[in-house]
Amino acid sequence: MRLALDAMGGDDAPRAMVDGAIDYANAFPANTVILVGREADVRTAMTRHGRAPANLVIEHAPDVIGMADSIDALKERPRSSILRCAEMLKQGAVDGMVLCGNTACSVVTAQLQLRRIPGVKRAGLLAPLPKPTGHTWVCDVGANNIGKPEHLVQFAEMTAAFLTAAMGRSNPKVGVLSNGEEDEKGIDLTHETLALLRKTDLNVVGQIEGHHIYTTDIDVVVCDGFVGNIVLKTSEGVENGLRKIIKEEITRGVWTKLGGLLVKPAFERVRRRVDWRFVGGSPLLGIDGVMIKGHGRSDKVAVFHALKQAAGCVEGGLIPSLRARFRQPVNAAATSGE
Amino acid sequence: MRLALDAMGGDDAPRAMVDGAIDYANAFPANTVILVGREADVRTAMTRHGRAPANLVIEHAPDVIGMADSIDALKERPRSSILRCAEMLKQGAVDGMVLCGNTACSVVTAQLQLRRIPGVKRAGLLAPLPKPTGHTWVCDVGANNIGKPEHLVQFAEMTAAFLTAAMGRSNPKVGVLSNGEEDEKGIDLTHETLALLRKTDLNVVGQIEGHHIYTTDIDVVVCDGFVGNIVLKTSEGVENGLRKIIKEEITRGVWTKLGGLLVKPAFERVRRRVDWRFVGGSPLLGIDGVMIKGHGRSDKVAVFHALKQAAGCVEGGLIPSLRARFRQPVNAAATSGE
Repeated sequence: MRLALDAMGGDDAPRAMVDGAIDYANAFPANTVILVGREADVRTAMTRHGRAPANLVIEHAPDVIGMADSIDALKERPRSSILRCAEMLKQGAVDGMVLCGNTACSVVTAQLQLRRIPGVKRAGLLAPLPKPTGHTWVCDVGANNIGKPEHLVQFAEMTAAFLTAAMGRSNPKVGVLSNGEEDEKGIDLTHETLALLRKTDLNVVGQIEGHHIYTTDIDVVVCDGFVGNIVLKTSEGVENGLRKIIKEEITRGVWTKLGGLLVKPAFERVRRRVDWRFVGGSPLLGIDGVMIKGHGRSDKVAVFHALKQAAGCVEGGLIPSLRARFRQPVNAAATSGE
Repeated sequence: MRLALDAMGGDDAPRAMVDGAIDYANAFPANTVILVGREADVRTAMTRHGRAPANLVIEHAPDVIGMADSIDALKERPRSSILRCAEMLKQGAVDGMVLCGNTACSVVTAQLQLRRIPGVKRAGLLAPLPKPTGHTWVCDVGANNIGKPEHLVQFAEMTAAFLTAAMGRSNPKVGVLSNGEEDEKGIDLTHETLALLRKTDLNVVGQIEGHHIYTTDIDVVVCDGFVGNIVLKTSEGVENGLRKIIKEEITRGVWTKLGGLLVKPAFERVRRRVDWRFVGGSPLLGIDGVMIKGHGRSDKVAVFHALKQAAGCVEGGLIPSLRARFRQPVNAAATSGE
């Protein structure tokens, strides 16, 4: 299997990308990682490691899209590493790609180059949110601003297919994010989405509330990209705020400081359990190819797991299963005369 | 000052209501609390305390609206404690009210009885979200499902007035909740809200993201009630999930368990800092009277602080300041002939 990695995207690129790619290449010698970016910069980052693994190759792309660039940068710098990754995936030169840079430019490029799987109306970004029993997968967290009921239904179908293909979880429980569980709660979007979902073969729970993401056994939550993005970032904010408050209070006294030293291994396990870096990134579901959008703050651990996640999608046959799911029935009228 | 408290609303009513009211009445002997509800039930809950304080009185209301009842219950049971509270406030028999029961029935009754302050287009529920440096106040968290730009602008104006009147905080920083800070991010609602906000005298920061609620010095965040409700409940969920994970990991080993005992006072301080019960409830801003919507899960501590919050709004002159803020200029055409 061959995976393309945008070596220039992310806050700590190319170093974090190169480091993560080397760790992945060493751990999975049967797979090849193609580092896409400015060859000189990538080589410089690689020299720190001595001899690079044989299953790590460089694909030169002279242009770089920065984290803060607007969509216009795609026109101004047409030979970017983002575009090169997408082209290679489109041409079949790689089986999947991982992009940790500018989200808007990555998502737009992927959609333009790879197009959507026939029958898919909108691509959706999927994110895992950590809870005591594992993760709840939320789609869309920002590929789109608004969503229609038929889009949210497809987000649910695609996420279920992803969980089955890449995570081995069958028949996941699906909820529609709303402001209440009762039928009279919600808005037109949630009601219409639920009505359509109940006509599918999915395991539909109903409308769910924000806290249910973290406190129930629901696997899949669908919402529009504006709301999903706010949920994702609010969650990050609560965790960061709470961690800061805990640290302040533990370091306030001598005994609690001592206790803090003793509980340190427990807190490291907590961090491990809620750490997005160990899960991977956000698959962009619905485009005709495996793409993982990694976090801009990805370090080598995150890059390693994003590559692993991409490989899981390829091995699990995510794209063939999505193609089969959304294949339109042959037009009955057109064939009825035969 | 006289405050009405719905004695029958909340998961643990009337007991929690009576207990909180007695604590408040003892702490603030100059103020009177009127417990509104089924007299026999309220008296039973009071007997556990021996002699009730003189500044605690009962107002009988025979009907009870349950936590899970739909809006229809208001028609079916017209002599409810919720309605009686609102009537007393409307008639001037009390200066403010605290309702911890059914949110939809409480909000609808308050709006129907008290009407909105002239010039206010929509009432909004305001909620404090805890962060390391204090609280960020978010409006609307569920009085409405959808919001128009002019509603969100008024939510910001009302929240700023509340912070000044009840919390003594002047010139608060205001942000519009969105999926990015940059101008090209956001949706029509956030762009139009921001454009209108910038024409006011408020201290407007711009579009903000979910994590900024918890990690910046922004005081006021506005959004529509659907999104705000999801943000509020997602935050609760993250906190509960994280607390559970921390507990699991600390109790996993002997040394971390010992450390857990030592850090217990620190965790109690953490809990105190993020605990909604010590802040009060959610003021329903925009109606012509002081109303605090308490959490359904309110215990006596939460009820005590909700009453204190209501008193703070009355003492700070919240309603007069809102009336002044939204007073329409006298129609120039109608008076120009004089």
